[in-house]
Amino acid sequence: MAAKTKTGKKPNRDTVTLSKIEKLARDVLGQVTKGGNPAVEIRTRTLTNVSFNEKKKIIELGDRAQSREFFNASMARKFMQTMLVASGCKTLIDEDKTISIRQMYYMSKHTLKGSNENTFEDQDESDPIIEDLEVGIDALREELHLFANRKGSAVGKLVIEDAGDRIDLARMGRGGWSIPSICEPEVLKFLECKAEFILFVEKDAVFSRLNEDGFWKKHNCILMTSLGQATRGARRLLQRMAYELKIPVYVLVDNDPWGLYIYSVLKQGSINLAYESIRMALPTVRFLGMSAFDYEKFGLTSAVKINLKKEDVARAEQMKAYPWFKDKKWQAEIEALLENGFKMEVDGFLTKSISFITEEYLPKKLRDRDYLQ
Amino acid sequence: MAAKTKTGKKPNRDTVTLSKIEKLARDVLGQVTKGGNPAVEIRTRTLTNVSFNEKKKIIELGDRAQSREFFNASMARKFMQTMLVASGCKTLIDEDKTISIRQMYYMSKHTLKGSNENTFEDQDESDPIIEDLEVGIDALREELHLFANRKGSAVGKLVIEDAGDRIDLARMGRGGWSIPSICEPEVLKFLECKAEFILFVEKDAVFSRLNEDGFWKKHNCILMTSLGQATRGARRLLQRMAYELKIPVYVLVDNDPWGLYIYSVLKQGSINLAYESIRMALPTVRFLGMSAFDYEKFGLTSAVKINLKKEDVARAEQMKAYPWFKDKKWQAEIEALLENGFKMEVDGFLTKSISFITEEYLPKKLRDRDYLQ
Repeated sequence: MAAKTKTGKKPNRDTVTLSKIEKLARDVLGQVTKGGNPAVEIRTRTLTNVSFNEKKKIIELGDRAQSREFFNASMARKFMQTMLVASGCKTLIDEDKTISIRQMYYMSKHTLKGSNENTFEDQDESDPIIEDLEVGIDALREELHLFANRKGSAVGKLVIEDAGDRIDLARMGRGGWSIPSICEPEVLKFLECKAEFILFVEKDAVFSRLNEDGFWKKHNCILMTSLGQATRGARRLLQRMAYELKIPVYVLVDNDPWGLYIYSVLKQGSINLAYESIRMALPTVRFLGMSAFDYEKFGLTSAVKINLKKEDVARAEQMKAYPWFKDKKWQAEIEALLENGFKMEVDGFLTKSISFITEEYLPKKLRDRDYLQ
Repeated sequence: MAAKTKTGKKPNRDTVTLSKIEKLARDVLGQVTKGGNPAVEIRTRTLTNVSFNEKKKIIELGDRAQSREFFNASMARKFMQTMLVASGCKTLIDEDKTISIRQMYYMSKHTLKGSNENTFEDQDESDPIIEDLEVGIDALREELHLFANRKGSAVGKLVIEDAGDRIDLARMGRGGWSIPSICEPEVLKFLECKAEFILFVEKDAVFSRLNEDGFWKKHNCILMTSLGQATRGARRLLQRMAYELKIPVYVLVDNDPWGLYIYSVLKQGSINLAYESIRMALPTVRFLGMSAFDYEKFGLTSAVKINLKKEDVARAEQMKAYPWFKDKKWQAEIEALLENGFKMEVDGFLTKSISFITEEYLPKKLRDRDYLQ
């Protein structure tokens, strides 16, 4: 992934990650040579060890840890697996390559000599080990040269450099640039930015509509989608753009609990990946819409109404109780969704006219600074 | 979508499509003014009207048609819906815009005056009407300015022009160019090609592995993925590249019935979209792998084996009976999968080494011309 420097020296981050892996190995080896019981301390990734940091405004993992010991029948297999994955990651960094977490499963899988036992039976076994290692040595998946699935595209007034290529996101035709899984500064740099803000949309068809209408040209912005729940790459890219380019990020999702959840994860991080919030979450991200109040505000008709299901109501109630939605404007927003009794999709603006979203809805929302944060 | 020419004249294809829609409207109007029962002839899209054209080597829709009449209680609603969608498509062409099929659902949806009846209740009603219209007036969805979902990326030795932007697919970093939904010649042109072939891979992680290893640089090719079953845009792009650039297309899918099916659809078209085979299918596409014989040929171990399920066996048997897999080499290939009793993923090559696929597998397959067609 990251190119070597001219002197053949590895980039700094890889050096740091390597030393973390090597420290883990040395510690274990030290315990073994002393005749001790080798063990690894790993913070527990359970709900009770996750909390909302009111100051940083992100979901964080607490300090409670568990010791994984080799001489323990219930832990020996996991211990062996942790060492295998750590060793695999060391090879990846040494060879300067990145692979998917499924590929890591295959890379670490073999039958133990003189037995029928496999090191891993399926990916359900290796994925949590990867998360353990991330937490255990405090190195993100991306730093371990592992990538998750990627989804999504970007276009707009930004020139980037990725893996040595200069890429002008204003010259991507209708397609856009495919957002990679790993968006760390070592491989992806921002060269020139003429954008004044970033618009992140949930749906690809909305992206296409806005791209075809030249929304980002007229409004000097960057347009991005990650097709539903944002991937790690998309979240990291959004966070970096917001902080490094110093421009606001607006989010446009469907008006339903799933849309609110997509926004919530962008903003505060998720409970599952709490240990990564610091690198992924963006507490300043702005919720532009669709708001439950947009129905009246923009004179929509019943053609856009989709009845809330029981699960939708339960999910919305749950979100109403999140500490980061405690603000009374957020309470009113979620309450309005429940009172409406229906959800709406951004595509529903097509009931007004083809380009209503580009020509009326978004300009008005932005002009009126009509967003939640 | 398609840019207007300097004289303000629409591109030729739009003119043709418009005249088809207008003819439909005129015919109906003529029947109405004569006091007749307006009707539209639509070829039936049922399995019995689909067949394999041995000469063209594609799956085709037959000529059997059904008349959809206005004065027929069971057809009146669909008749009205067909007119609404046709009218919507006319507006799209007039305004030079493209939308998704879900957006067309919203665009055509409203409550009929003086009633509680909606023109469409949900997208399950509008999608088949779009297909009816495609078949009825012989215009592809893309020509009606409608797009399906898109998925996938492309990189490699090709410079294209899309919607006026010059895009060098050799300078896309790790991301690649996102393949648009509509890949017709009016908007997407090939400017310079230095590629000698195209490699289409099923999985995005395989794409990333090969891209990072610089496979397309070393082997002078174009690398593409469409993440599973190829989208219409990806299929159309592959077909156009093969015919216009006159270079072969190789396909690399997992060794399982789903992989074979992905290849089969690329090659012959699908039964559901038989009326579009002529624009999408590519009978010359080459199946590079994974072959059931690769297990022995490349000394793989049991770590890559995934047991065939009952459905896999049934699906493979079904494919063995397809007329386009009648050739004895294909019969042997499918037979070998069944005899193996296991399936394999391309990612399984990671059990050999990280870049085995780039450095050993693909070069050997290509050198030995070890593919099926």
